[in-house]
Amino acid sequence: MNFEHLQQQIAFIHEIDKVKYIQRKTRLFNSDRNENDAEHSWHLAVMAIVLAQHANQPVNTLKVLKMLLIHDVVEIDAGDVFLYDTTVSHTNTEAERKAAERIFGLLPPEQAQELIAIWEEFEAGETPEAQFARAMDRLEPLLQNVSNNGGTWREYQISYDRVVQKKGIISEGSQTLWDFAKTLIDDSVEKGILKKEG
Amino acid sequence: MNFEHLQQQIAFIHEIDKVKYIQRKTRLFNSDRNENDAEHSWHLAVMAIVLAQHANQPVNTLKVLKMLLIHDVVEIDAGDVFLYDTTVSHTNTEAERKAAERIFGLLPPEQAQELIAIWEEFEAGETPEAQFARAMDRLEPLLQNVSNNGGTWREYQISYDRVVQKKGIISEGSQTLWDFAKTLIDDSVEKGILKKEG
Repeated sequence: MNFEHLQQQIAFIHEIDKVKYIQRKTRLFNSDRNENDAEHSWHLAVMAIVLAQHANQPVNTLKVLKMLLIHDVVEIDAGDVFLYDTTVSHTNTEAERKAAERIFGLLPPEQAQELIAIWEEFEAGETPEAQFARAMDRLEPLLQNVSNNGGTWREYQISYDRVVQKKGIISEGSQTLWDFAKTLIDDSVEKGILKKEG
Repeated sequence: MNFEHLQQQIAFIHEIDKVKYIQRKTRLFNSDRNENDAEHSWHLAVMAIVLAQHANQPVNTLKVLKMLLIHDVVEIDAGDVFLYDTTVSHTNTEAERKAAERIFGLLPPEQAQELIAIWEEFEAGETPEAQFARAMDRLEPLLQNVSNNGGTWREYQISYDRVVQKKGIISEGSQTLWDFAKTLIDDSVEKGILKKEG
């Protein structure tokens, strides 16, 4: 039997193990340990399954899951960028595009093209699936910070206004989730774990 | 706005963070660090996306992904059981059923029932989706052990016969993947990282 096709797929599966080493700034819900990109991607995917009913428009859940499961693979080469970092561009940088070509390029060509297209759709954030997937990506660290006594908001002195500005994108995927997120953000100010002034 | 439904979903999302603390026996592909259940579940889900074309029968990939993403949630209460452990039952124990009821039971009732049913379908291993999902669950640690100079096979002195016996279930989900897995197992014997006698 000719396993050439399969060998390419296994090479990809092997390579993406490195996603487990990429540390995020955000910490786990009840821990001082930083979350890694594999754990993060898993959590977003389960969130999407559970919360899909709140999307503004009906979404193809399979496509949302594919987006969330692979969205951080490019960070193997390009690294993680903190949401509140003001010195680095956040969207679809040249480094990320090159990473996508190299890493998804390990797969058979047709499959590589499919996953690059899904990653680009996620990055562009224009379809209902991409908007809902991006809402998950913004909601999870917000839940973690709320659970973690302020988490990265306190650690990096992020102000209420910047949180609202960065998290407002949740409304593009789900107005319901954004309405809920705002109550959490407002509660956080009351509790003193998020400051009105940075 | 009434967020009661959503509050239940958030409680579930919060609870399953604990999956990130559950250590497996198996180590990462290129590391001495043990893999945790969240990383494992993420990797299986991406594998399913990439390898679904090799399933014996066409599978509903969305259902396969749901199975893989939630299959280890019960281990929050019931703990991880090593595949080659001979002292503990592996399938659908009473502890696991109780865990499923408690943890999925945090969700709104209809969603809880759906996810418990999906978990039970995975455990029963009788549908094409469950068989393919279970093939992923057996294939990943095999790939890790091959990549890791024998990994848990060497560490726990697992013999060739037991590996073939335990991994043969891959063929129920995908004969192609089992044919491939056998070549890896045979190569491992030749390389001396898996022993014919335990």
